[in-house]
Amino acid sequence: MNAIETTVDMTLPEAEVAVREALAAQGFGVLTEIDVAATLKAKLGIDRPALKILGACNPNFAHQALELDPSAALLLPCNVVLEAAPGGGTRIAAVDPRELMSGAEFAELAEAAAMQLSAAIESLSGVTTS
Amino acid sequence: MNAIETTVDMTLPEAEVAVREALAAQGFGVLTEIDVAATLKAKLGIDRPALKILGACNPNFAHQALELDPSAALLLPCNVVLEAAPGGGTRIAAVDPRELMSGAEFAELAEAAAMQLSAAIESLSGVTTS
Repeated sequence: MNAIETTVDMTLPEAEVAVREALAAQGFGVLTEIDVAATLKAKLGIDRPALKILGACNPNFAHQALELDPSAALLLPCNVVLEAAPGGGTRIAAVDPRELMSGAEFAELAEAAAMQLSAAIESLSGVTTS
Repeated sequence: MNAIETTVDMTLPEAEVAVREALAAQGFGVLTEIDVAATLKAKLGIDRPALKILGACNPNFAHQALELDPSAALLLPCNVVLEAAPGGGTRIAAVDPRELMSGAEFAELAEAAAMQLSAAIESLSGVTTS
């Protein structure tokens, strides 16, 4: 699956703060948070690199999607994934709403949501901590 | 999008308890929870019928999916949606992992996850509160 992504020269916790601010600037709140590495460690005893999933939701888009088709709830919120990048820094990848909500009825809304998510992710490019 | 679904003769809070138990019996924990109605009320001032999204995750399936393709994180967890049914009771709909993870590399895993989610949802059919 294609994602809207960038890599930033920050640790994962630093990147999470920046991502949350960038999402908020585009009207997306973070409604859920999964520390995948901690969960797999606790449940399966597996050690794996840090991996976090933030569930981002723009309430206007969510409301419109649910009005168009209540089954949109099966696909909310939009995941924004943070993980260590192979070359250092943190990779940030957001699900593309145009791929996730591929139904024709969602086309216009998914395009608008993708534009705002892209703006949030792009605003992080070139951002480095001092 | 097709869902794995049923309708139970319970209030939404009763159904949530039953769903969590049924998911746990099939190895799925609930990692996230979104009260969509409360969120839209708080953010937009909109009144809408109760709607809750539980994020269900079976750690074994999640681990295997991430090993197959790290971008699987864009699609975790599996949403289980609870809402008032038009005819009374509560409608429970789980995203079908076979539709969500449509890549060929996930076929076997998505099928296994779908079977266990289906077993959880089916175990609720015919369950009524006294």
